[in-house]
Amino acid sequence: MKPDSSQLVYDGKLVDVTLERWDEHEREIVEHPGAVAIVAIDREGLLTLVRQRREAVRKELLELPAGTLEEGEAPLESAQRELEEETGLTGGTWRGVVAFYTTPGFCRERMHLFFAHDLERGTSSPADDEQLELVRWPAGEIELHLPEIEDAKTLVGLLLYFREREATKAG
Amino acid sequence: MKPDSSQLVYDGKLVDVTLERWDEHEREIVEHPGAVAIVAIDREGLLTLVRQRREAVRKELLELPAGTLEEGEAPLESAQRELEEETGLTGGTWRGVVAFYTTPGFCRERMHLFFAHDLERGTSSPADDEQLELVRWPAGEIELHLPEIEDAKTLVGLLLYFREREATKAG
Repeated sequence: MKPDSSQLVYDGKLVDVTLERWDEHEREIVEHPGAVAIVAIDREGLLTLVRQRREAVRKELLELPAGTLEEGEAPLESAQRELEEETGLTGGTWRGVVAFYTTPGFCRERMHLFFAHDLERGTSSPADDEQLELVRWPAGEIELHLPEIEDAKTLVGLLLYFREREATKAG
Repeated sequence: MKPDSSQLVYDGKLVDVTLERWDEHEREIVEHPGAVAIVAIDREGLLTLVRQRREAVRKELLELPAGTLEEGEAPLESAQRELEEETGLTGGTWRGVVAFYTTPGFCRERMHLFFAHDLERGTSSPADDEQLELVRWPAGEIELHLPEIEDAKTLVGLLLYFREREATKAG
């Protein structure tokens, strides 16, 4: 599946826009290298989230630790790097859970979601344009906090995690 | 919360890009008018999804019926219009469930999710650049089909719907 023609119409720093022709239709597409997000549970059974200012939406949001894939980087490697940078969490047991498109109507971004358990706490080193506040919740209390979440990847991750916990309890 | 300065750097058809200055940081932001998506259950207890070619991600995806807010349109009004256009479903009982950002790191898009029950089937009238195939699943079988879903809003909608069904059964 590929376009009849493709033209770069905006060459930005994070975001590029391509104009593609598909049969008689034109599509404007936001390019993106892909991303990772982590449902991160430490040895004390606490989930770590990050609260940060999201200029694009004019709001502080509470989100899963996440980041953008760097060139040549595998999703798991990227996820482990981003988690350590943003939260100081390392080690643990990792599992790829699902990959999905964040907004496939106009953007290429594919998000790889991981569950990581038994993580060890350490010192974070966020990028200097990231002002992050770490928020920790007991993993068993996630459902109570769901109404505080306004970010798609975080909703997907926490709902899948919650569903798995319930299935384990029931089984 | 607002930027020190803002400049339109790409003026597209669907997508615009703005460059904003926030303190010492520059942010590239994809503008978007907002969107709606619907977990749509008809009078026979079937969930309706749409399968469509998503050029941006080079794939056919199975998604909740959804669309972009038009100027001056309220989210519920938009959701009812989009659902009828894409699937022919009308009437029924509607409820706003959650609103979330699809990719708040760089894009303004806010997605309003609705649950609609007891819908009546009719004739769809998709826009001429939309080639949609309707797919119907018994609402009770949603969980079996989750591995087929690769779209964030659809995962959020179906996971929330599934959770509510389970809670109702348990209660």
